[in-house]
Amino acid sequence: MKTKDRILQAALRQFNELGTDQATVRSIAEEVGISHGNLCYHYKNTDELIEALYLQLVAEISPFAESAFRPDIDLQEVWEQSWLTFQLMYRYRFLLLDFARIIRRIDSMRQNFRQLMVLRRQQFHHGLQQLIQRGWMEPEPLPGQYDHLVTQFLIVGNHWITESTIQFEQEGEEVVRYYHRAMMALLFPYLSEKGKQMHRELAPDGKSGL
Amino acid sequence: MKTKDRILQAALRQFNELGTDQATVRSIAEEVGISHGNLCYHYKNTDELIEALYLQLVAEISPFAESAFRPDIDLQEVWEQSWLTFQLMYRYRFLLLDFARIIRRIDSMRQNFRQLMVLRRQQFHHGLQQLIQRGWMEPEPLPGQYDHLVTQFLIVGNHWITESTIQFEQEGEEVVRYYHRAMMALLFPYLSEKGKQMHRELAPDGKSGL
Repeated sequence: MKTKDRILQAALRQFNELGTDQATVRSIAEEVGISHGNLCYHYKNTDELIEALYLQLVAEISPFAESAFRPDIDLQEVWEQSWLTFQLMYRYRFLLLDFARIIRRIDSMRQNFRQLMVLRRQQFHHGLQQLIQRGWMEPEPLPGQYDHLVTQFLIVGNHWITESTIQFEQEGEEVVRYYHRAMMALLFPYLSEKGKQMHRELAPDGKSGL
Repeated sequence: MKTKDRILQAALRQFNELGTDQATVRSIAEEVGISHGNLCYHYKNTDELIEALYLQLVAEISPFAESAFRPDIDLQEVWEQSWLTFQLMYRYRFLLLDFARIIRRIDSMRQNFRQLMVLRRQQFHHGLQQLIQRGWMEPEPLPGQYDHLVTQFLIVGNHWITESTIQFEQEGEEVVRYYHRAMMALLFPYLSEKGKQMHRELAPDGKSGL
């Protein structure tokens, strides 16, 4: 593995376990087994490490988001890809946990993220249109309602990890599943009969308890 | 006004405008026009001020939340009281912005908040039952769906202020209204015909743009 990748891997582990205030360039260099100076040659400070990990997460998530543009999208795929996205976000949970503070501090990340959100909003709307055209979803029941739905997706998507830490001590896959279910439940009332049947197959027990 | 109230008022202003990292016991004492020692007699440190403001917010919100227990609840009242709650939260926005960090640090607040969330969950479920009984809402369309709905309410309610800061530069009442609309839109697909008609009267333009 390249040094840069080893650095990012160690940074991700330490940020997740210690938080971005406790993990330092020095403690990360120590874990990788390189000198402080060598690490700073690649990343000048923890903010540069945070930004590199943010861009890595965005790059890993993008293929899932872009699949919403595919004309043959079906509901099962939406479930599977959003599930993979939730798991990916959980791997980078330090970032989501401190996101507002981080992007207030790092200008380039804030700009990148806001552009990304404009794109995501379009992708969500486009994906909803595809689901309607393929008969999985009903047309918008009230003007503006699907724009609210996209806003709801964004809030749940951006904040479920923080919400989990303020609600529970519990961590891990059960928590990821709980919030993924709550996210997919946003779609349920707008599904067609065919869509509702598929939804019931994908979430057979209907449970949401932790 | 009592000294304690003047202190809390100044603390709220400084926390909102400067953040909890910048505002200090000293800068707050200065604004109130009392000595540092006098302030520390009432509140030992900023964490005690934060907790006092948290308890004040909870006390101010509780009457709105408790009204969900009233058997004669109607949809218009739900709108109005949730709107007042959103405005109230916005007055204490520093708290919601940094909530996860704050409750990780202050044990007594974390315990209080988690108990409060158990109560809120019951209140939401009870409120939904009342709306169903009064003919404003349809019964649960899928087992567990209204528990997901409550989870969605909690995520939007707890994180809309943070979400607004990561999405926009804009602040103020327009932002509060935008997210309040997105929150109320969670309820829309479950409303009865009578409920949907009332919803259209309450949100006549259907717009959600900022």
